[in-house]
Amino acid sequence: MTSLSEFDIIKRYFSFTETSAGPSHAGTLVGIGDDAAVVAAHKNPLVVATDTLIEGVHFPPEFLAKHVASRAMGVNLSDFAAMGATPRWMTMALSLPHIDTDWLAAFSQRLAQICQQYNVALIGGDTTRIDHGLVISLTVMGETQTRSGLCLRRNGAQVGDDVWVSGSLGKGAAALQLLMPSKNSMPWICNKESKSELLASFYMPEPRLALGQGLVGIASAAIDISDGLMADANHIAMQSQVKIIIDGDALPIHSGLETNLNRQIVQQWVLSGGDEYELLFTAPTDQSSTIESLSLALALPCTKIGTVTENLKEDKAEADSVSVFGAGWDSQSLKGYTHF
Amino acid sequence: MTSLSEFDIIKRYFSFTETSAGPSHAGTLVGIGDDAAVVAAHKNPLVVATDTLIEGVHFPPEFLAKHVASRAMGVNLSDFAAMGATPRWMTMALSLPHIDTDWLAAFSQRLAQICQQYNVALIGGDTTRIDHGLVISLTVMGETQTRSGLCLRRNGAQVGDDVWVSGSLGKGAAALQLLMPSKNSMPWICNKESKSELLASFYMPEPRLALGQGLVGIASAAIDISDGLMADANHIAMQSQVKIIIDGDALPIHSGLETNLNRQIVQQWVLSGGDEYELLFTAPTDQSSTIESLSLALALPCTKIGTVTENLKEDKAEADSVSVFGAGWDSQSLKGYTHF
Repeated sequence: MTSLSEFDIIKRYFSFTETSAGPSHAGTLVGIGDDAAVVAAHKNPLVVATDTLIEGVHFPPEFLAKHVASRAMGVNLSDFAAMGATPRWMTMALSLPHIDTDWLAAFSQRLAQICQQYNVALIGGDTTRIDHGLVISLTVMGETQTRSGLCLRRNGAQVGDDVWVSGSLGKGAAALQLLMPSKNSMPWICNKESKSELLASFYMPEPRLALGQGLVGIASAAIDISDGLMADANHIAMQSQVKIIIDGDALPIHSGLETNLNRQIVQQWVLSGGDEYELLFTAPTDQSSTIESLSLALALPCTKIGTVTENLKEDKAEADSVSVFGAGWDSQSLKGYTHF
Repeated sequence: MTSLSEFDIIKRYFSFTETSAGPSHAGTLVGIGDDAAVVAAHKNPLVVATDTLIEGVHFPPEFLAKHVASRAMGVNLSDFAAMGATPRWMTMALSLPHIDTDWLAAFSQRLAQICQQYNVALIGGDTTRIDHGLVISLTVMGETQTRSGLCLRRNGAQVGDDVWVSGSLGKGAAALQLLMPSKNSMPWICNKESKSELLASFYMPEPRLALGQGLVGIASAAIDISDGLMADANHIAMQSQVKIIIDGDALPIHSGLETNLNRQIVQQWVLSGGDEYELLFTAPTDQSSTIESLSLALALPCTKIGTVTENLKEDKAEADSVSVFGAGWDSQSLKGYTHF
């Protein structure tokens, strides 16, 4: 622990956008160090997403600094992917229980790396002391693809649309089981390769930005499945006022889960496990070949997993909105991650 | 404590911009309830400020919900005042140790009231559970007055400029003394009227937005004195690379402090007390009459308190940048509120 001031911390660890300002960040008129940041006006509507990670709630205290950085950014950029929007700027509210320069160095290095990878400028924030565990809130700002503000909403699913998901499922819950095995669970024989792949995708969720941007004007609704497949399908269903039926046998289960695991556990992880950061989206059937071409171009599998079947009657209970069929599939677990 | 979900909380307490959406918020294309918010493109550069308030650090646990709301917003809008910018939209990261519906109702009512007063739309955020005290981070977004991005910076003070301050000084430190008297301090006889005035300005700092906006193109540098007069004058001095001399006898001490208080205590509060939320600014001497007219029009006193005397040599120590003269004035206390 040292006696660095807030200004020292910002200058030493969080001015990387200022010091490496390339042409992509030329739009930053006032960066870190004034009362507020100012960036050049952009022509398309402004997109904003805020996410908070709390030590002891969203990650364990032993989590490495670089993983805190990559998860914080991954979660937020995944919201941008789900909107089909382009991230541009970010502010960070960082509350630290103490000043650990090794931690700050590792955290800031990874943060800078991801900012560069996704072309996001860190333009401001607030660094404060907190008595208990670390809290980090990122607010990412950016813009829609078009001047009219066209983006991917949750409320546009139409009867007859196909339901799609990107990547594979069950990764988030499986990684959590590897990191914090539940006491009553059966031993899980997971091979080394799968294990490192699962942990990597947990530590650094890869936001599906290119897919989301490619789906603007093609998909009718989209969401990232950070709360779990069923819970997030339910968000689309409720906001679009439709019913969704999912074909359990079509679900792209992550290959690392094809082991000695109990079938029911796998199903639970796939349907209700959060921390997935894939995109769940709906699209008219005549968009299938376009989506398949996009999937091929991005080398990111997209799988048709269901259908929007009918409009929801206003008095219908929430539990009726999404169901799963397929031998042995059970749609009990509608609820995903709840924040309280 | 109840079992409200995150969605219930947002719907019940934080959707006031959606439900009361008047023409001023017509620019909100996607509000609360999707992966991110989208607002209409604006023509002027984007201004962003983030501030965090932490229970036990920035306010005591017994603080009322409405005061948490007004201080959180006041602090952030004060940053906008110091930039001469116009706030428009806000996201909130709210981390709650438990769900107290009375607290949430009072908090949201005051938040909605201030949003309406300053024409700010709450467009999104993240509501999460935390194990210990409450944490609230607000990110306010808005725009500069002009298309070119003209705003009030900290780095524009020029040799020969006058130094000005709005309102009166010592309010923040005095209010803190009333709320949390230090053990070793002398008893302070503060009359009822002054007391309620001091506490009111602490609970709801009034951001000097109209003044800041009026000073764009007139003041050469500006800052809000949330860290204390000397510390914030030092920020202007260091960023402008100038020396500032302040006339102690010219400082507008708050009338509530003209009591039995020890002169040294008053000076300490005036020079180093934080939580002031007045604007400290510099301007060429030929702008004096314009500033006086603005002050009159806004019914907000602005006082000339010093001068920018010379350029700072690069190797000059920070402690040399700001000094106070005047019989009995002592500029020892350069440091204001430090965040660590």
